[in-house]
Amino acid sequence: MSLTLYSFWRATAPYRVRIGLELKGLSYDYVSVNLGGGEQHKAEYRAVNAQRLTPTLDIGDGDLLTQSLAILEWLDETRPQPPIMPSDPRDRHRVRAIAAAIACDIHPLNNLRVLRALSAAGVGDEGQQTWIARWITDGFKAIEPMVAAHGAGFAFGATPTIADCLLIPQVYSANRYSVDLTDFPAIRDVAARAEAHPAFIAAHPNRQPDAPADPPSP
Amino acid sequence: MSLTLYSFWRATAPYRVRIGLELKGLSYDYVSVNLGGGEQHKAEYRAVNAQRLTPTLDIGDGDLLTQSLAILEWLDETRPQPPIMPSDPRDRHRVRAIAAAIACDIHPLNNLRVLRALSAAGVGDEGQQTWIARWITDGFKAIEPMVAAHGAGFAFGATPTIADCLLIPQVYSANRYSVDLTDFPAIRDVAARAEAHPAFIAAHPNRQPDAPADPPSP
Repeated sequence: MSLTLYSFWRATAPYRVRIGLELKGLSYDYVSVNLGGGEQHKAEYRAVNAQRLTPTLDIGDGDLLTQSLAILEWLDETRPQPPIMPSDPRDRHRVRAIAAAIACDIHPLNNLRVLRALSAAGVGDEGQQTWIARWITDGFKAIEPMVAAHGAGFAFGATPTIADCLLIPQVYSANRYSVDLTDFPAIRDVAARAEAHPAFIAAHPNRQPDAPADPPSP
Repeated sequence: MSLTLYSFWRATAPYRVRIGLELKGLSYDYVSVNLGGGEQHKAEYRAVNAQRLTPTLDIGDGDLLTQSLAILEWLDETRPQPPIMPSDPRDRHRVRAIAAAIACDIHPLNNLRVLRALSAAGVGDEGQQTWIARWITDGFKAIEPMVAAHGAGFAFGATPTIADCLLIPQVYSANRYSVDLTDFPAIRDVAARAEAHPAFIAAHPNRQPDAPADPPSP
């Protein structure tokens, strides 16, 4: 079964799935959807993803999976090794609670379409920066003790899980928007560990085929 | 094991978990957290839920589960009968994609804390109504064909799943904000079916102990 990922180098939702694919050791074709240039709104991509969001994973024969969190669960159910979820239901809840705190409570408020809607509603650049920092800081305040309690190198335990697939892109976004992470040492430790892990290195935005030759830092 | 749900009658995230608990035939104690009155910000509830969000499910001995989507998955893993997820991974993805389209792409943009942040950023009542309707309509446009393709009474198949636990509260919210659902016949059909289902009836906001005696309609 060949896999094709519709992705944009800098968007955090496809970044999550790239990490999952790399952790599972799966190769895949990369199709760039230039979100900055509005390619997600063109008929060609709307036929792939009616929500005009990335990622979409084509799992062969045009069978298209949407929603990064649902894709990661599907990956773990269909390619169990190495696991990216613990086996105990209570532990699985812990991983999913971290993932949901990012996927439901931080990221949706800060993505491109929302920032554009804020502009349209009259909120300027400074207001948008305040908006972004607020949701990341609020969310990380909740996630920090979860990671401190059950992380052991990664967000839950000693090996990467779906929680890390969500957390590392969110840290990337926090750095992009210069959000102060001083108060989140457990999260910063996980991010430092991921920086040295081959799957996270390979999935990093700057490594993607549609990244600019001289990408901004971070 | 006794279950205690921290809930607010009108909030859609605890409404999802109430549906799940009712579908599983589980009884639980109800603790009201008055979101309108700011009870979520008090020290007592912050000790329960650091994010100051509802729901929280106390599964006994003060072991506290957060995040509605993660709670529903935990419920299905620990109380498998009746199932609220299909068994095939591709089908499980379909259910999770509907759930995520609501939990990640609609609801987070329309909840109380975000509407208050919009007010603080200078967006008035009319702008907020436009904002709410936009995200519900955008999301339902994506969900409608998913339900039309694989629903058979409920959002996926003939029996309720986690997708319905998310969809029915979102329809309730759409009605509350007078969003036009004319273009979403498959979603409206599921909502009509749920209106006659005992678990959805029992979980409805107006039936909760903290609902006003004469609740607004819808």
